[in-house]
Order: sequence, then C-alpha cells, then structure tokens
Amino acid sequence: MTSSNNYCVIMAGGIGSRFWPYSRKNKPKQFLDFFGAGQTLLQLTFDRYKKIVPQENIFVITNIAYENLVKEQLSELDESQILLEPTRRNTAPCIAWASQHIQQLNPDANIIVAPADHLILKEEEFIEAIQKGLEFVAHSPQLLTLGIKPSRPETGYGYIQITDEKQGDFYKVKTFVEKPQLEFAKIFVESEEFYWNSGIFLWNVHTILDAFGNIMPEIASKLTAGEEGFTSSPNISIDYGIMEKAENVYVQICNFGWADLGTWGSLHEALPKDQQKNVIIKGNTLLYECKNNIIAVPKGKLAVLQGLEDYLVADTDNVLLICRKDDESTIRRYVNDVQIKLGDEFV
Amino acid sequence: MTSSNNYCVIMAGGIGSRFWPYSRKNKPKQFLDFFGAGQTLLQLTFDRYKKIVPQENIFVITNIAYENLVKEQLSELDESQILLEPTRRNTAPCIAWASQHIQQLNPDANIIVAPADHLILKEEEFIEAIQKGLEFVAHSPQLLTLGIKPSRPETGYGYIQITDEKQGDFYKVKTFVEKPQLEFAKIFVESEEFYWNSGIFLWNVHTILDAFGNIMPEIASKLTAGEEGFTSSPNISIDYGIMEKAENVYVQICNFGWADLGTWGSLHEALPKDQQKNVIIKGNTLLYECKNNIIAVPKGKLAVLQGLEDYLVADTDNVLLICRKDDESTIRRYVNDVQIKLGDEFV
Repeated sequence: MTSSNNYCVIMAGGIGSRFWPYSRKNKPKQFLDFFGAGQTLLQLTFDRYKKIVPQENIFVITNIAYENLVKEQLSELDESQILLEPTRRNTAPCIAWASQHIQQLNPDANIIVAPADHLILKEEEFIEAIQKGLEFVAHSPQLLTLGIKPSRPETGYGYIQITDEKQGDFYKVKTFVEKPQLEFAKIFVESEEFYWNSGIFLWNVHTILDAFGNIMPEIASKLTAGEEGFTSSPNISIDYGIMEKAENVYVQICNFGWADLGTWGSLHEALPKDQQKNVIIKGNTLLYECKNNIIAVPKGKLAVLQGLEDYLVADTDNVLLICRKDDESTIRRYVNDVQIKLGDEFV
Repeated sequence: MTSSNNYCVIMAGGIGSRFWPYSRKNKPKQFLDFFGAGQTLLQLTFDRYKKIVPQENIFVITNIAYENLVKEQLSELDESQILLEPTRRNTAPCIAWASQHIQQLNPDANIIVAPADHLILKEEEFIEAIQKGLEFVAHSPQLLTLGIKPSRPETGYGYIQITDEKQGDFYKVKTFVEKPQLEFAKIFVESEEFYWNSGIFLWNVHTILDAFGNIMPEIASKLTAGEEGFTSSPNISIDYGIMEKAENVYVQICNFGWADLGTWGSLHEALPKDQQKNVIIKGNTLLYECKNNIIAVPKGKLAVLQGLEDYLVADTDNVLLICRKDDESTIRRYVNDVQIKLGDEFV
C-alpha cells in the first residue's frame, strides 16, 4: 500500500440547525471559526487529513449552496475535488456518489469518510488510529467504523455493540443502537461492550461499492447515471442504509479526544470548564452565581451573567438565544418557528 | 400670573448606572431612545414641558461631559439655556445654581424642577397637574412636591407621609421616608397617608432661594460666586438637604401614570406586559416558558428565550447582561467590576 491509494471524503453539506443561532442556513457550523482560533471546522478537518492522505486525494462533498464557502475556505483545493450535491439526500447517496467518483480515479482506493464538524483533541493519536485503520481496510474487505470508548452515558450519540470476534485489534460489530435513553446509556457504559459511533468510516472502494450493490442496488444504479441520478436517490443515512445491514462491519476502538459537535451540549461536554462547570466560547464574561452553562458571545463582546444554571446563552449577529441546556433538542423547533414567524433573516 | 413667569429646569446630569448596559457613562439613559419610539427620554421630557412653559424658559442642567449630547438632541435650545456642571454634586447644588440663574432673569419666576428620565403615561393629566401646581406656588410661599398615589408596595421609591393640614388640594408634608423595606411599604400603601416621592418639584424662585439661605447657607453663599463655587459645594441631594428639613413643604397628589425610570425593575412595573408578565423593549422576541422577565434587545435583533423567570435580559452594543430581576441592585457592583477588570470600553 502506498499513501497515494488513500483518499478522504469530507462531508460538509449539513445545515447544522441544532447549533443555531451560530450555525445559519447560509453559513452552517462547519464553515464557522467556532472557537475563535482562526480556522473554521472545515479547515481544521482538512488540515487534519492532509497529514494522512495526499492533499490531491481529499474530496469535499457539500450542497451546491455552499460551493463558494468551500472554495473560499479551502482555496488550495482544485475544483475537481469539490463534489456538489444538487439536493439534500443525507449520507448514503452522498457516500455512494463520492465512492464511484474515486473508483474511477483509482480502483484500489482506500477511503476515509468523515464529517467536517468533529472535534479531535489528540491529533497524534488520531492520525495513528486512522493510519492503522487504512492498513486494515486495504487488506481486508470490511467496512470499518471508528468506535469511541464512552466517558459518560451520553444520550446524544449512537452506540455500537461489539462481539468477541476479532481480526487483530478490530472487533466485529454485533449491532448499532440509536441514541439511547439515559438508563440504557448507563448500562452501555458499564458493560464495556458498547462504543460511541463516531461516524468516521474507512473502507476500500471495492468493499463499499459492493455493499451498495448488494444492500442498496437502487442507489448504486442511479449513481452510475452520474449527478442526475442523485436527486432521485432516496433520502437515507449511511448508518441506516448500509452499516446496520451489512454483515462485514468492524469497529476500531479509539481514544483521541473525540466529540461530535452536533449540539451545544456536546460542545459543553468536550470543552474545558471553569470551576463552576461553565464553558465559555469566545467573548469576555463576568459570571456571578452561574453554574454549568455554555456561553457563546461574539469576540469583543462582554457578557455579564448572574444566577443562571444549566443554560445555553448564544449571542451572535442578529440573534440571541437563551434556553435550558437540557432542552436544546427543541432548538430545531425554535428555528422552525423563527422561519415561519420572522422569515429567512434570522435562520 | 402670566405663563412667561413659568420656568422649567430639567436635570439631565445623572450617570444612570443602574440601567447599565443600556445606560453608559458616555451616554446615560436620558440620552437614549429607550423605547425605540424615535425620541430620547430627554427629548420626551423637553417636549412635555414645552406644552406648559415657554420654550425659552426651559433650562437643561447637566454635566459638562454631556454638553454635546444635549446640544445634538435639543438643537432648538439656545446655548444660554444649557447649564453645565463642572463636577457631579448631586441635586442640591444643581438646583441652587439654576434657581439663582433664573432669578437674575426673572425675580418672579415659578420653577418646575424635573429629572430628565421619568416616564409619564397620561400627558393630559400631567399637564393639568403641573399647571395647578404652578398656580399654587405662584401665590403661596411653599415648596411643592408631586406625590404619586402608590399602586403597589414599591421598595425602590421614597415615600412622603402627609398630614391633615391642607391648603386647597395641597397637603402639608409630615415626613419623608427613604426607600422602605417591603413590610413597611405594604403598611404605607394600605394607610393612604403615604405617597411616592416623584422628585418633581415646583416653587417660586424666592421660596426656594429663601430655603437655601435658611437651611443650606453654605451652598447659597458659594453659588453667588457663580460657577466657580459649584465645585466646592457639598455633594448632597435636594431631598436630604432641603425638603426633609424645610417647614413649608406641601404635596400635590397626582395620578398621571408616573414611573421613575431609575431601574430596570421600575420599567417592568411601568410598561405593558404580555400574558406571562414579560416586558419587551425593542427588538423581536420569541418566548417559550418565560415569565415575568424584562427583555431589551437592540432594534433588528431577535431574542429567542426559553425557561426564564424573573430575569433581566439586556443586550446592547458590546454588552449582554442577564441577571435575576430582584438582584438588579447589584448592577452597580457589576459595572464596578467591569470597570476594574475590563476598563472603560464596556461601562
């Protein structure tokens, strides 16, 4: 295996509405410099994979609405490395299309498929894990997913249950579990049989296209027609469409400080906290009797907060959102209400 | 009495720190269009008194730091109608100076002294009351203060206790009471002997200058030296320096929808509320499970709030303040902390 057989597909087409109001329809979270660190999540993700695969082997697949954002933020990409989805069709059609595209370039390709909005805190461990995974899928016709050792009974993530069956350090998957209720999540963590489903996948291009051909032939056939077939593909996730149904799915157990920045709550879990467990993103703050909050205010702004516990305070541009941190699943409802009552200006 | 004997002194020199972050050191609340109605509190106050006294008889007394703000906001004022205090010395020196100034212009002047930041909801009743009061002080050498029939046991206002002794509809004052504790405030309201001290005063210029001469000769003598004496005057309020000590103080009982916009809480009491008792000042809001809050966001901004009860949310410019409404007396502490820790930029 030479590294020129290794490819990466960064999925950057999501709307990120659960991160509203920071994430906006015309600029979702992957295009934001979320931590005020000078790089957007997409740029951080790209730089991370550049250390693992040749730059010209990295593809970004996104909605056509975000074409300019991708070009601006990753100016080093050739136009041919940007795949533009004409419509939103979730991850299965997206991955099928990218896989066919890469197969035409290199029929021996090993592919990493990764979302653009994950937080990776330990990069060295991450790179090592990915390289080990690439090695595995280059020589074994398995679908590999990265499983994260759970540090808490998180109800916002999906879980993977492993079997005893191993190939080297890679465990065969027994089953995938959708976001569980707390009592189950607690049992999962204690069992040591369950791992967080990171949503980062590795496979050889043959293996994934075989899986599509066997399990979702309707997608495989549509995409041979090229971009035109995309719109008529079913709206379905790779997890539901392929991973939960395939027989050859393996897990690599990892520990590289991973968080899916899917929600504000996940950000609170992932980031350093003050003594009262408040997480502060950008901005200046003075806190009095405040506990366990997540606070995001724009750079240059000061937030003086008193008497808040378990709240999200997100102030940006023309929107201020304050809600109970536990109720953040209702953010989508707020966004929907805002859209209906006030129009596009605020979503 | 002709109306040309009637004068008005608008006091517009306060810092308004209890209204931070809307009120800023370089632009206190009287200079703000607080309700997004197109006029600042000072402009509203000026327009109100223009209906009662000749425009050229209205004086604005303010700190020298706010000279330009007054000139900008009241461009119809002649420069001679703006009295600039070289330092902050509370209301007694301010009123003594303005009184001497007006006496030189018209020794028969009847003067209304009024803060620039009061909310008057029923203007017709207000004008009628002031005219009646002016008539009284033109013919009777009394210090007249407007007392407001209390609608609730407010602990943020001072109270005036009346005697049975009357001149027409004007009651002689028994005593002034500083901001009371709740249990006393309740008794006051029930007694029907106590009225809110509005801080709006009426008197003939002779009467007030006699009072200064008798009760605070040190101020009277200093101010004959003109502006130079101002700085060496004691820092003392008219209430404490004169009203509580004079023997000839009368109250006119009024009911014109008055509120001292001294604090956010007073604003909450004064303004119309939604069904959940939330008061919204400017901006767009979507509220979920929110009760009894006061919410101020800039025009054009949207606040989506969930699960807040009894809070103040004040978002403006480069500061966001969220605190329990009952704890707003600590706003001064926050402002102080901000000044020390972050400097002038935010105060």
